[in-house]
Amino acid sequence: MLYRDHTKPAGERTEHLLGLMTPEEKVGQLIQLFGWQTYEYTEGSVELTEDFKRQVREGGVGALYGTLRADPWTGVTLETGLGPRAGAEAVNAIQRYVLEHSRLGIPLLIGEECSHGHMAIGATVFPVPLLIGSTWNVELYREMCRAVALETRAQGGAVTYSPVLDVVRDPRWGRTEECFGEDPYLIGEFAVASVEGLQGEELASGSSVGATLKHFVAYGSSEGGRNAGPAHIGKRELLEVDMYPFRKAVEAGAVSIMPAYNEIDGVPCTTNEELLRDVLRGEWGFGGLIITDCGAIDMLAAGHDTADGGEDAAVQALRAGIDMEMSGVMFGRYLLDALRNGRLEEKLVDEAAARVLELKFRLGLFDQPFANPDLAERVTGSPEHAELARNIAAEGIVLLKNNGILPLSAGIGKVAVIGPNADTGYNQLGDYTSPQPRDRVATVLAGIRAKLSAEKELVRYAPGCRIKDSSTEGFESALQAAAWADTIVLALGGSSARDFGEGSIDLRTGASKVTENELSDMDCGEGIDRMSLQLSGVQLELMKQLKALGKPVVVVYINGRPVAEPWIDEQADAILEAWYPGQEGGHAIADILFGDVNPSGRLTLSLPADAGQLPVYYLGKRSRGARYLEGDSQPLYPFGFGLSYTEFSYTGLQVEPAEIRADGTAEVTVEVENTGSRRGAEVVQLYISDRVSKVTRPAKELKGFRKIYLEPGEKQTVTFRLSADQLSYIGPEYKPVVEPGIFRIGVGRNVNDTLDMELAVMEEQI
Amino acid sequence: MLYRDHTKPAGERTEHLLGLMTPEEKVGQLIQLFGWQTYEYTEGSVELTEDFKRQVREGGVGALYGTLRADPWTGVTLETGLGPRAGAEAVNAIQRYVLEHSRLGIPLLIGEECSHGHMAIGATVFPVPLLIGSTWNVELYREMCRAVALETRAQGGAVTYSPVLDVVRDPRWGRTEECFGEDPYLIGEFAVASVEGLQGEELASGSSVGATLKHFVAYGSSEGGRNAGPAHIGKRELLEVDMYPFRKAVEAGAVSIMPAYNEIDGVPCTTNEELLRDVLRGEWGFGGLIITDCGAIDMLAAGHDTADGGEDAAVQALRAGIDMEMSGVMFGRYLLDALRNGRLEEKLVDEAAARVLELKFRLGLFDQPFANPDLAERVTGSPEHAELARNIAAEGIVLLKNNGILPLSAGIGKVAVIGPNADTGYNQLGDYTSPQPRDRVATVLAGIRAKLSAEKELVRYAPGCRIKDSSTEGFESALQAAAWADTIVLALGGSSARDFGEGSIDLRTGASKVTENELSDMDCGEGIDRMSLQLSGVQLELMKQLKALGKPVVVVYINGRPVAEPWIDEQADAILEAWYPGQEGGHAIADILFGDVNPSGRLTLSLPADAGQLPVYYLGKRSRGARYLEGDSQPLYPFGFGLSYTEFSYTGLQVEPAEIRADGTAEVTVEVENTGSRRGAEVVQLYISDRVSKVTRPAKELKGFRKIYLEPGEKQTVTFRLSADQLSYIGPEYKPVVEPGIFRIGVGRNVNDTLDMELAVMEEQI
Repeated sequence: MLYRDHTKPAGERTEHLLGLMTPEEKVGQLIQLFGWQTYEYTEGSVELTEDFKRQVREGGVGALYGTLRADPWTGVTLETGLGPRAGAEAVNAIQRYVLEHSRLGIPLLIGEECSHGHMAIGATVFPVPLLIGSTWNVELYREMCRAVALETRAQGGAVTYSPVLDVVRDPRWGRTEECFGEDPYLIGEFAVASVEGLQGEELASGSSVGATLKHFVAYGSSEGGRNAGPAHIGKRELLEVDMYPFRKAVEAGAVSIMPAYNEIDGVPCTTNEELLRDVLRGEWGFGGLIITDCGAIDMLAAGHDTADGGEDAAVQALRAGIDMEMSGVMFGRYLLDALRNGRLEEKLVDEAAARVLELKFRLGLFDQPFANPDLAERVTGSPEHAELARNIAAEGIVLLKNNGILPLSAGIGKVAVIGPNADTGYNQLGDYTSPQPRDRVATVLAGIRAKLSAEKELVRYAPGCRIKDSSTEGFESALQAAAWADTIVLALGGSSARDFGEGSIDLRTGASKVTENELSDMDCGEGIDRMSLQLSGVQLELMKQLKALGKPVVVVYINGRPVAEPWIDEQADAILEAWYPGQEGGHAIADILFGDVNPSGRLTLSLPADAGQLPVYYLGKRSRGARYLEGDSQPLYPFGFGLSYTEFSYTGLQVEPAEIRADGTAEVTVEVENTGSRRGAEVVQLYISDRVSKVTRPAKELKGFRKIYLEPGEKQTVTFRLSADQLSYIGPEYKPVVEPGIFRIGVGRNVNDTLDMELAVMEEQI
Repeated sequence: MLYRDHTKPAGERTEHLLGLMTPEEKVGQLIQLFGWQTYEYTEGSVELTEDFKRQVREGGVGALYGTLRADPWTGVTLETGLGPRAGAEAVNAIQRYVLEHSRLGIPLLIGEECSHGHMAIGATVFPVPLLIGSTWNVELYREMCRAVALETRAQGGAVTYSPVLDVVRDPRWGRTEECFGEDPYLIGEFAVASVEGLQGEELASGSSVGATLKHFVAYGSSEGGRNAGPAHIGKRELLEVDMYPFRKAVEAGAVSIMPAYNEIDGVPCTTNEELLRDVLRGEWGFGGLIITDCGAIDMLAAGHDTADGGEDAAVQALRAGIDMEMSGVMFGRYLLDALRNGRLEEKLVDEAAARVLELKFRLGLFDQPFANPDLAERVTGSPEHAELARNIAAEGIVLLKNNGILPLSAGIGKVAVIGPNADTGYNQLGDYTSPQPRDRVATVLAGIRAKLSAEKELVRYAPGCRIKDSSTEGFESALQAAAWADTIVLALGGSSARDFGEGSIDLRTGASKVTENELSDMDCGEGIDRMSLQLSGVQLELMKQLKALGKPVVVVYINGRPVAEPWIDEQADAILEAWYPGQEGGHAIADILFGDVNPSGRLTLSLPADAGQLPVYYLGKRSRGARYLEGDSQPLYPFGFGLSYTEFSYTGLQVEPAEIRADGTAEVTVEVENTGSRRGAEVVQLYISDRVSKVTRPAKELKGFRKIYLEPGEKQTVTFRLSADQLSYIGPEYKPVVEPGIFRIGVGRNVNDTLDMELAVMEEQI
């Protein structure tokens, strides 16, 4: 059989196989089921459900979602879930059944959540993307993506539902943590790295997975920061800001993409033909899979109300370019009905099925469909991956304030480690993680204890309060510990530890729902949007009472969205923003607190002073107002900001040549010197500012960055190349243009602190 | 001379006159000067400035802006400014000079601010448009516009820079008060009334003025509620929401329109050819004048940065369709330069000059160029107009809460009138008013005193605090007065009383600026945008201390944007939202407090519970999220809401026929009965909801309303006609469509409280 011949190209094999298939089998390939519902795991053995087996026999199943996912939503717990070896074996049992009991033996496509580690028990939990962005270290992230791909594929996962490339415009949004930040250029660089890292050089290598770009598009601009709400955005901004990272990732070869739940100007992304067919498939030449978000097709008929029932929704989606609905079992039935009643042309089903099959061929699933239990056991959560997780955390944590107290000296004396996030491991993992054994998560307390392990009597711990309940009964013991200590480390922030009793997005309609559960800390994560950016619960009050003791207080924020607490910004002796730093977070934080690591994270979100200022982002137009009655509209900490334990000087900015043609290239060089006394890393940032243009431009735009590592006294010349790719913008006709004129070029340590020169572009060209 | 022959049509006269003019004279017609800078008024006589006289001789001046405007910005005060007769005489002196000293004797076009009364000393100050909208009484507003036109034209004003038709989306915006509300249909109805009222049946009648629609467009959707900030909005929403009221007003015959300062998706409205030439002039057939906002052309070169200097800006603007820059003296010089250096075709100048001239002909200025001092003295601020102002205020004040304390009984006992807005007349006038003699403004205190005039010893007054400073030194006397009283009336809110030391929009760049002036109360008005919707200063604290006395507290809000103080909503015994109720506001408030008027105002803005919920407006899509962690995303008081002293029942809703063709008409009828014991007015509101559509639709859309007045026990059948005009929306191709399908029709007392039935539309048609 030609389609089984691995020497033939994927396209040829696809065509041959498609020719052998019945309409039911083709539609079957478009169906994805919830993976964790296909089997029961009892007493060490995997038993497939009768439902699943029947479905396989009656035309088949194309894919599974979240086969190893454990969390309150799936109902799978640390106790009832599968570890790496058992997980790989379970996936193999499922895959084997499909291969043996379907007519043509088409392997399943196993899709998994892997945004910052495979969402499975025992997998390495890396920091959340918001911290990853803050590293400004694309190489390190690429390495992480290789590790994630290795862990995932070893357990049979062949595609991931990551990276998340949404551009954050409103941090009230609970998914802020899942994004790299607010800047499209920065996100674009990480987007390329994610595709390169996840997909590797060879998709079929056994250590690669297919990347799914999401959420296409403007999902980060939802109304009021409410998850999946409408995006109010013009076409030019859409093309230039939100679509940019997706285009970069498509150019890098991403094999899959996921439209967003939201609508834009009245059109749901799931059925937006202009976006999916004209731009994505047409202009960008994307040939991969388009898979909806979970339940997004149902949402067309119940939420968006652009479809008159499920069949209409399914047909509209396929017509718009969708190939598969995430976990949409009804999708297949609707399509079969529509085929039979003539509302759907078989050609459209053929195209979608061909894309599913071709992806399976490209991933090598026909040739090697099985997971590797031995490898899974060896690589999943390995010490090497833990080390990588720690390094990323250490590079992404941002030092916001330091009155000189940091780094803590060796003879620090007694330390009180206080706060709801000081020793609550699950609170530091972020959303889209499965539960992990407690000993696999290093908390702040554990990190500090490890630093002072020879002197254990130097550390006392008290949580003080929970994240968001109003009880102050823990204050007393916290104040006692603090009174005893010389220095207070106070870990505040939020939690996205998912407790299904507490809150989640309604996966059918995309609407947020929150129910009561007093035990949960969750104040962030998908579906948990906030009206305020202040700390939840009584955390500020705890800080105020501790501060009143008159001792130094180092605040560590562990959270998924910016905190706006100006009082703490004034009163804390030092502030670290650690976002959700992952399983090794506590070690990375301690490394920074004690100076073993010199902090080099830089903000990828402008941190507002108050939710009443929103939107706060640096990429705004010059015409936006500067002030409110209560204060200015500027962020408290600007984009790109972060302190170090050393100092870097910038000198000798040059732009060469000073005049270029529109298709030319200039080199921008600057000398950066470590003028302090410690080794450290600096993120050198390049911004442009188009002086006059046919369409208004942002005051500044990031167009390059480089992270460099300098010994004390060491000086380095940093060179950026600047050409049409960076100088162009979406012009009057909605196409990229480079306009002649003067650009202001700024190089420096954050958006508000740059050396500036001019570059002249001499001639117009498209 | 043909152009002087009033029997000839305006077009013919224009053509003839234009043929006689030099390029300098044509360009001169495009120039508008600040009117108050053209003369000095000393010792009762008007002296024209040399600058002005020179400009008249050297090619001319087309128009003046704000000739009689008195406020801190002009520097003209109550003491130094002109009253009605002197004002009319001054205008005549200016006009006479122009007629006598220009070659062709072309009269000036005098443009004035008249949003809620002529912005001149002595003119009637009506309530602000936000209150006018809340009357839902279009007839009354049309009557008011007739009165405003009469007062204005009597003093020589021939065009007004009103109505403001912006759709409010973010009440942080300081100009919220200047708008009718958040709903385009409602605004559209008032827009038509404003054109009919201001322009009358005959523009040249001597009692009519030309209306200038502003701000075209999306000025009410600025980023973060910051004045003149970019609008992020898609094309469909723009056409359907923000442009709708403008289209209605253009169809009603408005003769002038003003593009907004802001940009939309990168294109400043001032140079948006698609909006100005394609849509406004092309599709809508608008032949009137397009005048920029003040300094908007400069802003192109310094702010938007889409023009390379003033000349480029001026040429771009003219090319895009602008005819005149508001108070832009440089505009003319730039255009002359551009004509001379060949960058501008004379044809474009001809077109613009023709539109200015034709408007002057239509206004009758060539035939009767002079103001009427006798008439001005008689009608300006007349008792009849004051009565009208009081009626409008009484119909627009909204009763938000009433635990039964209102109306106050005759034997009310002792009343303490407290609060910074209880007796501060200028605080209740709103922005864009000139100062008025104190005895012409009836405050809350004056209103209550008038009710209890026979028993003066029953009322005590104490301000308690100012609007926004932090001093509580007035609390003691307020608490004393309250302790003495049986009932407390507490007038809180804001102020748009303009103090130039305090804050204003920078009229050159549109940017907000605020400087220090501790004496000012101003926390609202143009350029005064806020981060919070809470009461400024210590007002909440004052309320808390008064409430602690355990006596009934009736809160009266006098303000320009919604207040979000949930504690007051819980604790006050009654709440009246009076917006800025104008010069007769105190009487209207007292009329309602004492039951002489039964309140019938209904909200035209959804009142948020917190600024962190923004945007809060009823016209949202079904897919927007319902909740935040801290609470739901719903307003505290819904659109259309307002209480009465009586009760109205709704019964017998009928939709006839239940099925119509897309070009058909249905009649919706409902029986409304006054089931209470007082005469009262009800605003019967009609909403539609399109069940399924090709493009997503709002959950509900206002499509009709009727204010009816019923005696106790009286029942009335209210009939609405519903046809394509209301059922259509901006469809997939950005054109109006009526789609077949089911509409849910709701009729009731506010958007959340309706009787519902279905209407089926049978057939598609464009």
